[in-house]
Amino acid sequence: MELLKEKIRTEGKIREGNILKVDNFLNHQMDIKLLNEIGKEFRKRFEGERVDKILTIEASGIGVAAIVSQYFDYIPVVFAKKAASLNLDKEVYETKVQSYTKNKIFNVKVGKDFLNSGEKILVIDDFLANGCAAKGLLDLIHQAGAEAVGVGIVIEKGFQDGRSVLEKEGVRVESLAILDRMENGQVFFK
Amino acid sequence: MELLKEKIRTEGKIREGNILKVDNFLNHQMDIKLLNEIGKEFRKRFEGERVDKILTIEASGIGVAAIVSQYFDYIPVVFAKKAASLNLDKEVYETKVQSYTKNKIFNVKVGKDFLNSGEKILVIDDFLANGCAAKGLLDLIHQAGAEAVGVGIVIEKGFQDGRSVLEKEGVRVESLAILDRMENGQVFFK
Repeated sequence: MELLKEKIRTEGKIREGNILKVDNFLNHQMDIKLLNEIGKEFRKRFEGERVDKILTIEASGIGVAAIVSQYFDYIPVVFAKKAASLNLDKEVYETKVQSYTKNKIFNVKVGKDFLNSGEKILVIDDFLANGCAAKGLLDLIHQAGAEAVGVGIVIEKGFQDGRSVLEKEGVRVESLAILDRMENGQVFFK
Repeated sequence: MELLKEKIRTEGKIREGNILKVDNFLNHQMDIKLLNEIGKEFRKRFEGERVDKILTIEASGIGVAAIVSQYFDYIPVVFAKKAASLNLDKEVYETKVQSYTKNKIFNVKVGKDFLNSGEKILVIDDFLANGCAAKGLLDLIHQAGAEAVGVGIVIEKGFQDGRSVLEKEGVRVESLAILDRMENGQVFFK
């Protein structure tokens, strides 16, 4: 997706540890017009697929997923939760997810009411790196007896093994920008 | 907002400790059509006001804020962060927020690049109870030398003191549904 790549080139910042910061438009401040273009692109990529629901994970997937839903007939968006909360029912599907950027293992949960057997689920997230978050979401989907239509990622770190981890699960991965490498403060795409 | 009240009446669940669960359409699973109606309503309430940016707090404010932005000329949405992350710059405005539902004090942060002196900011959140979260966001706005146009809340617990806490700060509060009380499993609005 050229518009997204251009945005990454001009506004992305590269920090130590191969971390690409896109907090100017994606995961701290959000460019809502860009998210709409992202929604249209995911619609194209998954054209013809039945999708009943979008599943994402808090926090930075939520804004993307909410806007993307508008291009999938406003289907419900469910976000898996990382933190214990009085607001969460006891009846949950649960899995463990290692976060690279937060250096922590999270118990990720979805209320059992919100994933149902037979549903076709599209997973949406802002980043794909080692695939832990998306794999955790696939695990929740399988626990519910639902089916993953695919995983839609805004930015994939092509030099990490997230894609192969997910493809081993038999799921289709669509990333709108795939980073090949970062060198001398410049981003190169696959 | 009648549509929202009807949704709360029919789909809200009341749990111990005066907790209203609206996880079916607002803060776990999100009804994106409803969020669009909410966006239109906030636009009406703040008609004629200059708004440069929307500020919310992760996680459940993000989806609401992203959709609401579409009715304010797609202005940027910034979400304050609760967790330490490698993705967050060192240069932040920071404040402490007590969470009632998570029984915890969070260090809430916004990168200094994302709130600027002179900007007019609309605070958006899903719930107003004791006002801690919104007051924390106002604190971040003031630290940046920006100005709060108002606080837009989806559901206000009218029996807690959030509104008076915020009005003492001199800020306008617009809530789309104000709970008066919950009795025998029924919700009553002000």
